[in-house]
Amino acid sequence: LEVKGVKQNYLDFEKNLKYSFNNKELLKNALIHKSFGNENRKYRNINNERLELLGDTVLALIVTEYLYKNYKTSSEGELAKIKSMAVSEPILANISKKLDIGRYLLLGKGEELTGGRERSSILGDAFEAILGAMYLDSDFDTVKEFTLNQITDFIENIEENEDIIDFKTILQEYSQKMYRVVPEYVVIGESGPDHQKIFKIEVQIKANKTVFKTVGIGKNKKSAEQLAARRMCDKLGGKLNETL
Amino acid sequence: LEVKGVKQNYLDFEKNLKYSFNNKELLKNALIHKSFGNENRKYRNINNERLELLGDTVLALIVTEYLYKNYKTSSEGELAKIKSMAVSEPILANISKKLDIGRYLLLGKGEELTGGRERSSILGDAFEAILGAMYLDSDFDTVKEFTLNQITDFIENIEENEDIIDFKTILQEYSQKMYRVVPEYVVIGESGPDHQKIFKIEVQIKANKTVFKTVGIGKNKKSAEQLAARRMCDKLGGKLNETL
Repeated sequence: LEVKGVKQNYLDFEKNLKYSFNNKELLKNALIHKSFGNENRKYRNINNERLELLGDTVLALIVTEYLYKNYKTSSEGELAKIKSMAVSEPILANISKKLDIGRYLLLGKGEELTGGRERSSILGDAFEAILGAMYLDSDFDTVKEFTLNQITDFIENIEENEDIIDFKTILQEYSQKMYRVVPEYVVIGESGPDHQKIFKIEVQIKANKTVFKTVGIGKNKKSAEQLAARRMCDKLGGKLNETL
Repeated sequence: LEVKGVKQNYLDFEKNLKYSFNNKELLKNALIHKSFGNENRKYRNINNERLELLGDTVLALIVTEYLYKNYKTSSEGELAKIKSMAVSEPILANISKKLDIGRYLLLGKGEELTGGRERSSILGDAFEAILGAMYLDSDFDTVKEFTLNQITDFIENIEENEDIIDFKTILQEYSQKMYRVVPEYVVIGESGPDHQKIFKIEVQIKANKTVFKTVGIGKNKKSAEQLAARRMCDKLGGKLNETL
C-alpha cells in the first residue's frame, strides 16, 4: 500500500492518536476514502469501507458496554437512545476533527474539490475505520481505552451536546424513509424587539393520514427549527430510534 | 435475584453452554423475559433487555470480525449482507433451540400459554442476552470463542441456510415499513402431474408509483413464495439491508 506521490506524515497523525500502529498498512488503509480508490487504478478495490464496517461494531460494543455499566437504572430503550446519539455522525465527525483525521485522508480529486476533507460523513466514517484498524492492530481493551478517552465526554454531556446533533437532518432522513415526505418548517410567531427577537417555528410532517406537529422557539430561526425537530424526534420516539 | 418458586437447573444449562458463570446472577438475569418481570412485582424492572442490547453489539463485532478476516475479497456491502443474515432472528433462534435456552427462560403466564417458549423472537433475544451476560462475566475472547463455535457453521453455509431465513417475513416487515403495504403473492402458473407439481408464484409490492415484481418456482406454494420473496430481497438489495 505504498501511496505514490502522497506524502503523509503518519507519525504526526499517530501522535494525535497517542497510538503507534504495529502494522502501518492498516492505518493507511483506514485513511483511504473510496473516491481515492476509484481514481487510482492501483487502489481500485482498496478503501476504508471494510474497516469502517468493522469499526462500527467495535464502537457500538464499547459505547453500549459503557452505558450498561454506568447507567444502571436506565431501561434498554433509554440506553439505545443515548447510544444512537453517541455514535451519530455529528459526534464522530467532531472527534475526527479533534484528531485532525481530515488532514491525513486520501481523497479523490472530486471529493477534494467539493470539500470532502471537511464532510461530516467522510470524517465520521474514517473515525470508525481507524477504530477497526486499531482493533485489528492491537486488542479490544486497547481500542476501548482509546475510544472511551475520545467519547466519554460527549456521552456524559449528551444533553448539552444535543445542539451538535443535527436533529433536522435526522428527522428529514426518517421522514423521507417512513412517509416519503420532507418535514416542513413554518414560522408561526415572531416577537420582541429587533435585537432580542424570539422565533416560534412549527415543524409539520404530513404522513398518510396524520399530520405530526411540534413547535420550537429560539433566538433565531435555525435554533427554533432545531428545537422543533428535536421535539418531533422525541415525539416519534421509539419509531425513530429504529432508523438511527 | 433469587427466583422464588421457580426451580431452574442452571447447572444443566451451563453444561449445554459448556461455560460456567462466575456470577450466576448474570445468567439468571439473561433468562428473565420481560413478561416475567411484568407479572412479578419483585422483578418489575428486571429483565434481560439491557443484556440483550449489550449482547447484540458483542455478537455484531464477533461476526463482523470473522467476516472481515475470512472473506478478504468481499466488499463492505457483501459483508454487511452476510452479517445481516448471520445475526438474523431465524439463525439466532435456531442456535437458541440447540442450546435449549427456551427450557430455562422465565416467562410470564401469558407468554407461556401462547407458546412464548418456542417463539423465535424471544429465543433470539435470549441468546443475545446470554452473550451479553457471558461477556460481562468473562472477557471478549471467551465469548468470541463460544459464539464462533455456535455460529460459524451457519455463516459458512449461509447460502444453504437461506431456507431457514424466512424471507417472506423479512420482506413483509420491510414492505410495511417502506411502502405501508404488504407483499401480495399470486399463483401465476401450475404445471406437471399431481405428484410432481411445479408452482410459479409472483410476489408484488405495490409501492407509491411502482409495482415491484419477482417470480419464484417450487414444488409447493410455500417454497415458491419463499424463492420469490428471496429474489425480491435481492432486488431491493441495499435498501433492504438497512432495515435488517
